[in-house]
Amino acid sequence: MPTTLIDQYYHKIQEMKLLTSVANLLEWDQQNQMPPKATKARADKLALINKLHHERMIDKEFARILNNVYEQRDTLSDIDRRSVEFTKRQYDKKAKLPTAFVEKFSRATSHGHTSWVEAKEKEDFSLFQKDLQTILDLSKQYADYIDNSKPVYDVLTDDYEEGITSRDLDGIFNTLVKELPPLLKQMKKKQKKNALEGRRFDKIKTRAYIEKLVEQIGFDFTRGTMGDVPHPFETSITEHDIRINMKYPPDDIGYSIMSGIHELGHGLYEQNVHEDYHQTDLRNGVSQGIHESQSRLLENIIGRSEAFWTYALPLLQEHLPDEMGHVTVDDIVHDLNLVEPSFIRTEADEVTYNIHILLRYQLETDLLNNKLKVRDLPEAWNAKMKELLDIEPEKPSLGVLQDAHWSMGAVGYFPTYTLGNLNGAQLWKRFEKDHPKWEKKIAQGDFSEYFNWFKENIWQHGSFYQPQELMKRVTGEETNPDYFVAYVKEKYTNN
Amino acid sequence: MPTTLIDQYYHKIQEMKLLTSVANLLEWDQQNQMPPKATKARADKLALINKLHHERMIDKEFARILNNVYEQRDTLSDIDRRSVEFTKRQYDKKAKLPTAFVEKFSRATSHGHTSWVEAKEKEDFSLFQKDLQTILDLSKQYADYIDNSKPVYDVLTDDYEEGITSRDLDGIFNTLVKELPPLLKQMKKKQKKNALEGRRFDKIKTRAYIEKLVEQIGFDFTRGTMGDVPHPFETSITEHDIRINMKYPPDDIGYSIMSGIHELGHGLYEQNVHEDYHQTDLRNGVSQGIHESQSRLLENIIGRSEAFWTYALPLLQEHLPDEMGHVTVDDIVHDLNLVEPSFIRTEADEVTYNIHILLRYQLETDLLNNKLKVRDLPEAWNAKMKELLDIEPEKPSLGVLQDAHWSMGAVGYFPTYTLGNLNGAQLWKRFEKDHPKWEKKIAQGDFSEYFNWFKENIWQHGSFYQPQELMKRVTGEETNPDYFVAYVKEKYTNN
Repeated sequence: MPTTLIDQYYHKIQEMKLLTSVANLLEWDQQNQMPPKATKARADKLALINKLHHERMIDKEFARILNNVYEQRDTLSDIDRRSVEFTKRQYDKKAKLPTAFVEKFSRATSHGHTSWVEAKEKEDFSLFQKDLQTILDLSKQYADYIDNSKPVYDVLTDDYEEGITSRDLDGIFNTLVKELPPLLKQMKKKQKKNALEGRRFDKIKTRAYIEKLVEQIGFDFTRGTMGDVPHPFETSITEHDIRINMKYPPDDIGYSIMSGIHELGHGLYEQNVHEDYHQTDLRNGVSQGIHESQSRLLENIIGRSEAFWTYALPLLQEHLPDEMGHVTVDDIVHDLNLVEPSFIRTEADEVTYNIHILLRYQLETDLLNNKLKVRDLPEAWNAKMKELLDIEPEKPSLGVLQDAHWSMGAVGYFPTYTLGNLNGAQLWKRFEKDHPKWEKKIAQGDFSEYFNWFKENIWQHGSFYQPQELMKRVTGEETNPDYFVAYVKEKYTNN
Repeated sequence: MPTTLIDQYYHKIQEMKLLTSVANLLEWDQQNQMPPKATKARADKLALINKLHHERMIDKEFARILNNVYEQRDTLSDIDRRSVEFTKRQYDKKAKLPTAFVEKFSRATSHGHTSWVEAKEKEDFSLFQKDLQTILDLSKQYADYIDNSKPVYDVLTDDYEEGITSRDLDGIFNTLVKELPPLLKQMKKKQKKNALEGRRFDKIKTRAYIEKLVEQIGFDFTRGTMGDVPHPFETSITEHDIRINMKYPPDDIGYSIMSGIHELGHGLYEQNVHEDYHQTDLRNGVSQGIHESQSRLLENIIGRSEAFWTYALPLLQEHLPDEMGHVTVDDIVHDLNLVEPSFIRTEADEVTYNIHILLRYQLETDLLNNKLKVRDLPEAWNAKMKELLDIEPEKPSLGVLQDAHWSMGAVGYFPTYTLGNLNGAQLWKRFEKDHPKWEKKIAQGDFSEYFNWFKENIWQHGSFYQPQELMKRVTGEETNPDYFVAYVKEKYTNN
């Protein structure tokens, strides 16, 4: 056992870090390779690893070390102090949860996810209704354990975006709901050209192409891999093992590329946290809202630009000459920037995407405040969709059952997607000030301006700064929806 | 906590079982997906999980439960009793090892494996020499902890093949060394036809073909997967998650198919252990020597037969018409059954394979008995190769550095490969008695006789019977090299 308090602290969090890493691998593998009948045994393993982690977190000896080192935090180096503060905030939450409650919640979401999968498959919301009710009840109980002086929603969303409140979110969504629907009406309807769909795209060739792209943009394959999954995501097993996971629908190469670049945005953030932070609790990207800004700006602002495709199309044509030989940069850019109300959030364009989030935010707030009953949720979903986007889903899989989040206990999570879009536009505006000629560089396949600026300003800091502190430090102000509104207005009304 | 002793025992081993399963996944992933720079973090995770397992194994409360339930074993059901006995044998070994020694050994093999990889790459044995010395010293110390009344080799090999002694092995190898080299001289040299090599075989098509094959033979993809690895192996994450891992050298489809079927033999064994054993310590195949019998007989006796290729060639031609259209069953069977001394054990034919093992057995015995110094090992290897097979490797990667086993601490392991070959031939002889027309069935792609007989007689029993007990139960006698000798004599002198 080390002698100084700070070394004892690092010694203790090291084992927790390893257990988190093991849990991440178990979850990654569940999506990648695990055969279907192993589901129960996998849940058992995850529950054990999470229990071992929780035991270490709430261990009395650890509490003593953490509280003591926290008391003395002003004597520590900046990195040590921030890491201790970060851990202390986590600890203060976790220590309030009875172990039995943690296990109960874990079982409820495990069960809930299974019933959600079945309900979605059978297009029958009632199969998920009871589990959703349980998850909402437990979420409220969770908020009650953590801090019963605050609104439930604020406690829940704080786990994903530290410091954000429903008052902040209301302000943001009020701006968006005022600006976006009118913009949508004002836009001329464009025809799809089908440059990237309708043909068959060989998976191996598509994968090889995306591998080239992500390497060129800056992904380090000695410290990361590309996995195959049913739903794309990024996961950090350790700081030297960052996995961006994609899928390749054979008839939609646009989806493969765009979702691939999206996950790359997360991956670059994680791969470029400063190595001085690797042994600390600051080693990951700071919040969902900052993380999503990195994936969304790479996917949307860079990835759907003419500059990007000037570079990326010839490479695509090299890999798939027969399928893509006839396509022009204009065709692709046109197709990738169509705006049209649609049912599925993950396939929505930049303008309507946040309306999807607004819908979820309003519904989950109403559910938590007992203004809406779970059994009335499908109807409320459809009515809200009609109101906001003027379309109505024909079946639950296109509506209320499309997202896995609630079934996994992630209530209060959705707004972080919108925060990601807003933060992305706001950071990009600042980037453009330093690099007004970025389009020229990227059209040549030179991503160094982008890579270095975001590494310098965002990625390397890991969780050193809290989200809004980071936004203020880089852009001079906290998250402000005006940048995003200006960005979409300029992009979609100048065409 | 359950109330009866036997339930307390099952409760305790359940957590150990989950930890073993986690370690297996960490190791599998290390071969499959892990990026190179994650090596150290992976070693840390494995060390932690193994430590947590060891702590539970040597925990006083567990010892109390295990010893008490062991005392009362005659009152238990057969399954419970055998599981308790199995665990007790493991415990009696593990409890003798100081935790510090376990960690030291783990570090030594982790380091040893890395230096072996480097030594092999640079063709320089001296880079591995010091670590090999350490591993041998620790192996002797290990044997000393476990049972210093027995020969070191007997203690070491018992971990892989319970109950076998160097006296047994000497007897077996004496028979083989008397029979095999003369047989080799007697055989006419045949020319390679290159039916399965020299062309380029698309990996995706090859993989799709092997997937069809293994499914037809009986692999259950709802409880297993096929992974991609640099060195083929099988691993059981849990009883519902059996992974057969293969590689696809683009110029040698014979290797892909034969190694694939070999791993399938292991996989079928693991997938078909009786479900009553899943919660017990009897849930895996019983020993390396029985396990290897299942992979070797499927690969060699079935997989290299005319009957098999009568079925398998048309399917291969469907998948790779351009590459395989011109090939005949005779061509393939001829090529797959060539016998010729060669350097690499894993690519050796059925006849010379056991000579490779004999060489390793003699050398590791001499090393452990101080009859041979580590620094003289390369020279001794080459001399032995010349003596036994009349060929001499030009570089260490073709000789003394070809196998990873010693670097991973597996000293005393090699003979189990030979036991596998002998057991396979002996079991097959018994199978043929029940199913003399097996060739007709398999030529039609009907593997049910094979599948049902081995499930019934071997697979379902897991570790219920000890290896030699199982051999006796099924064939009427313990491992006897005569069956194998008769099999190769008949196969290779009648051609």
